[in-house]
Amino acid sequence: MKILHTADWHIGKKLYEYDLYDEQKYAFQQIKEIANKYAVDAIVIAGDLYDRSIPSEQAIRLLESMLVDLNIENEFPIIAISGNHDSARRLGAAKRWYEARKYYLRTELTVSETGVRTLDAVEFADTQFFLVPFFNPKSTRSYFNNEKIETMSDAMKCVVAECKKQFKPNKAHVLVGHCFVAGSSHEDSEIQSMVGGLDEVPVDIFKDFDYVALGHLHNKNALKAKNAKYSGSPVKFSLSEIKNQKGVYIYDTLTKTEEFVALKDKTPIVKIEGSLYELCQPSKYRAVPDNAFVFVTLTDREVIPTVMQQLKQCYPRVVHVERKYGLIALKENTINLLEAKLTPFEVTSQFFSQTQDRELTTQDKDVLQKIIDEVLEEDQQ
Amino acid sequence: MKILHTADWHIGKKLYEYDLYDEQKYAFQQIKEIANKYAVDAIVIAGDLYDRSIPSEQAIRLLESMLVDLNIENEFPIIAISGNHDSARRLGAAKRWYEARKYYLRTELTVSETGVRTLDAVEFADTQFFLVPFFNPKSTRSYFNNEKIETMSDAMKCVVAECKKQFKPNKAHVLVGHCFVAGSSHEDSEIQSMVGGLDEVPVDIFKDFDYVALGHLHNKNALKAKNAKYSGSPVKFSLSEIKNQKGVYIYDTLTKTEEFVALKDKTPIVKIEGSLYELCQPSKYRAVPDNAFVFVTLTDREVIPTVMQQLKQCYPRVVHVERKYGLIALKENTINLLEAKLTPFEVTSQFFSQTQDRELTTQDKDVLQKIIDEVLEEDQQ
Repeated sequence: MKILHTADWHIGKKLYEYDLYDEQKYAFQQIKEIANKYAVDAIVIAGDLYDRSIPSEQAIRLLESMLVDLNIENEFPIIAISGNHDSARRLGAAKRWYEARKYYLRTELTVSETGVRTLDAVEFADTQFFLVPFFNPKSTRSYFNNEKIETMSDAMKCVVAECKKQFKPNKAHVLVGHCFVAGSSHEDSEIQSMVGGLDEVPVDIFKDFDYVALGHLHNKNALKAKNAKYSGSPVKFSLSEIKNQKGVYIYDTLTKTEEFVALKDKTPIVKIEGSLYELCQPSKYRAVPDNAFVFVTLTDREVIPTVMQQLKQCYPRVVHVERKYGLIALKENTINLLEAKLTPFEVTSQFFSQTQDRELTTQDKDVLQKIIDEVLEEDQQ
Repeated sequence: MKILHTADWHIGKKLYEYDLYDEQKYAFQQIKEIANKYAVDAIVIAGDLYDRSIPSEQAIRLLESMLVDLNIENEFPIIAISGNHDSARRLGAAKRWYEARKYYLRTELTVSETGVRTLDAVEFADTQFFLVPFFNPKSTRSYFNNEKIETMSDAMKCVVAECKKQFKPNKAHVLVGHCFVAGSSHEDSEIQSMVGGLDEVPVDIFKDFDYVALGHLHNKNALKAKNAKYSGSPVKFSLSEIKNQKGVYIYDTLTKTEEFVALKDKTPIVKIEGSLYELCQPSKYRAVPDNAFVFVTLTDREVIPTVMQQLKQCYPRVVHVERKYGLIALKENTINLLEAKLTPFEVTSQFFSQTQDRELTTQDKDVLQKIIDEVLEEDQQ
């Protein structure tokens, strides 16, 4: 059978202030087209379907529509697990109903009252799938009846042993997991999850599987291994991914070969560098598409109060601005404006003099006072 | 066919500080037994499955297990709608998959891309069900293509017209709704929802239906009407429901008759009144079961700092204490202890002298200072 392997959709994720729903929909449409073009027999989603444990209603709506489209409208079987970003309980609440449509979702290592275990193989005609949701190693002790489990490696050895007991020699064996496999390299957009204390699993633990469909790391090249792949995320989630090629794997369990199929980005991510003056020249900004997500490195050193507004006039979707050489140190007698208890008038005029190196004129002061009075009046209404 | 009509499960609701999960499980077990005993052909749940739009993981786990039990293990078809306490989007996220198991859930008035409308009848051999989720009247304007809809009555007239167009004369017609029907009386535990601006629907709007299975009001006697019933909630959620009989309706679409089947309470709700001294006499508290939820009306007028602890020694699950005659006004020179900036030592000793009408002794002060020092030390560790 042929499977499409994807992961780390992170529906609901933002790039700083920008929603990525349009980018995620665009990637999804391509994934659906690829699934149809290659006539795959199942779609594997290796965790982190949502970006947050309590997703927004908008994120729920979007993921629901995608899964309905794939599984109900297009009748693709789906094999999915929860990742560290998903709430196992929330994502998995309807899983007992999904199976009637061949949408196999596993979110927790549990044993049912009738003895059904999460790691019981999902059987297809020529392939056995073993679904390993993200877990905290120690939480698996009761599932494996093994109090000695401490690390992710300890737990994953038990996982593999349980899978191998079920191996049917005439079938291919595919493990679906969401973890950090030793030797992988990671990107900015995953660092937060790494801090959570997730530890490494040596890749050779998985040597007896024909294919290991991994999620967690967002770069398809994160791991160099023959039988284990990270598909990577379908959308770029950070500046560090600027040069990564996004895509999905098509794995054929008969020929035991995989093919990486690229996805196009809807929105370019662009990094620019220069002084504000240089970057705001037409010759410079006209070279950058209006819809691009733009990361700016400024070479100026002075405080520029309206820098974001000025940049957005030239690059409508500035994501982030950083200073290459830092800021000129403020004068010694600078007051920490946030800590000092000042009136709105005082804080504004002192900020002005600190950053502009001159005092407000009498006329400036009149205007400032008028604005402050208006704002305070509105506040009281 | 025979249907079991229930509503307002409010999974996750608390009675002040007390979870009601055990009470809800106990009621559920009885509902399941009744469904089996009467061999009903479907179970109708008329809204407010959850108590909150974002339920806790524990609430999700419990409702999931109940619905799996009824629909998957016991193979009862389920007909359900969202109420004003549910998030239509969150509750309904998996509804496309539920239908394969004959679990029909409607949470929003929508028209699908293929023209399927929420109010399209759910057809059983001898009965048509029309599922009307809770809605805000104006939000139905686009569904009905009618900009004049202002009130709940306006919207419900459109609902009924759409249902009646689909009426098959050889079938019974059942509407499932979650709204406030004119002439109904309500209880404490629903007041919050009423404030939300829900308006009334005259009961004769529904005259052409054989049965209207309602949710929203928690008292089965809230509405006096021949063909429209509130099942009421299966569990008591407030003191005002102390004397209500909880239960479910069994409706037979062939004989067009209904029967109310009572549910037993797991936990009695008890109201007691007297002075603290009286209520703490064994003759008094031994008459109240230890597991009872107890509402106390105290006849004392003085401040009693440890009143809750003292009451709980006699009645372990005191829910709420109120004063029949109010409190004696504090002395004129009383310091508002919360507003004054005092050290922990000062605030404690002043509270003591205000409430006990004497000063701390030197020995008391030593003990107090020692305790404060220990607490502060722990804080710093």
